[in-house]
Amino acid sequence: MKKLGLVGGIGPESTVHYYKGIIQGFRERTGKDAYPLMIIDSLDLAEMYDLAAAKDWEIFSQRLIDSVKRLSAGGAEFAAMAANTAHIVFEKVQAESPLPLVSIVEETCKAAKKENFKKVIIFGTGFTMSSGLYTEKFLEYGIEAIVPEAEDQRAIHNIIFPNLEAGIVLPEEKEKILEIANRMIHQKGGEALVLGCTELPLIIKEEDLEVPILDTTQIHIEAILDYYMLG
Amino acid sequence: MKKLGLVGGIGPESTVHYYKGIIQGFRERTGKDAYPLMIIDSLDLAEMYDLAAAKDWEIFSQRLIDSVKRLSAGGAEFAAMAANTAHIVFEKVQAESPLPLVSIVEETCKAAKKENFKKVIIFGTGFTMSSGLYTEKFLEYGIEAIVPEAEDQRAIHNIIFPNLEAGIVLPEEKEKILEIANRMIHQKGGEALVLGCTELPLIIKEEDLEVPILDTTQIHIEAILDYYMLG
Repeated sequence: MKKLGLVGGIGPESTVHYYKGIIQGFRERTGKDAYPLMIIDSLDLAEMYDLAAAKDWEIFSQRLIDSVKRLSAGGAEFAAMAANTAHIVFEKVQAESPLPLVSIVEETCKAAKKENFKKVIIFGTGFTMSSGLYTEKFLEYGIEAIVPEAEDQRAIHNIIFPNLEAGIVLPEEKEKILEIANRMIHQKGGEALVLGCTELPLIIKEEDLEVPILDTTQIHIEAILDYYMLG
Repeated sequence: MKKLGLVGGIGPESTVHYYKGIIQGFRERTGKDAYPLMIIDSLDLAEMYDLAAAKDWEIFSQRLIDSVKRLSAGGAEFAAMAANTAHIVFEKVQAESPLPLVSIVEETCKAAKKENFKKVIIFGTGFTMSSGLYTEKFLEYGIEAIVPEAEDQRAIHNIIFPNLEAGIVLPEEKEKILEIANRMIHQKGGEALVLGCTELPLIIKEEDLEVPILDTTQIHIEAILDYYMLG
């Protein structure tokens, strides 16, 4: 059985979500009474957030590279970073990684391609929306990815931090975020909404919108499971 | 900051409980916006359960020793096994471990000693109760530890598997387990009940009994936090 190395801790809730989701999916897919082997390196979320806020991508990348190397030393045979934000420096990490990495962005693009979407909307943290994280990769797949205007980006970021991160969903914040989504669907022609942050599925559900949702975390977990199934 | 290596996956729910508990406790104790460094190696619960059931302690120990070595390779500076059952072979693992290990049994004995208990009752899985896991170590601390009769051991084990493991608490099972506890308190003079299994706090609460409870998982987490605080 292959062994997964998971770069975790950014944040811990997301790490738990991956851990439980991978175990549940593995057991469902194999139908066997067995549990997937996994090693998880949990980083300091506060430090990583500060590095991202300061745009110190050099040290930010180094923390992730060191983590993947530790996971490799601990027996991992492939790896994934359990956070969208970490993928801003994915190419850098991959270049130094001793292990193949499963990218949440690449897998989301593949999922959108499969559904034949031509134009999708990206929601995520300010880091994710302003960095071109999804927009550039989607272009390679011939899909246009649009992000909210700066003011809407700030509003979404401030709904994720601190409330959503702490699991708190306020009705007025839900109304605000759906207003932004609906406006972009109608005015810009977005055919699907990409939830590019682990916490967003807490506040935006499939039934809230007229267009489909792409839950990046779930897509990432399924891709990791595909890797396990390769044996 | 010291880095913890956690042998996890036996079982996953318990691992999540440790992970969240350590992070929460660390943040409370330090009062800083920082997260503890941790690496978790998640084993195959089904294989470990089968090895314990077959009393194949040789391979069972080897799995744990290999895990601690992987955690060490991944940068851990001290380690803990997030399961009572794993401690049946604690001495064996410790003898081969490159890292200092925090023992749930030793820490529970220290906690009982601090409270001046002379006689405690041990509840846990059949493996834990029948192996002398807690009884022998408690003797070293001058404390008598008593386990239920064979029939009661079976009843408790069968409440833990599969219901408690899946988070299911049935009223008739709660009544049964409290009946055993109360009988041992009154007939044998147990001064405290040791919950020697991560799932037992789901079904037995402090307010259910006349005597105090020693929650081994919580004691273990606090001892791990003490280690972090050493810096």
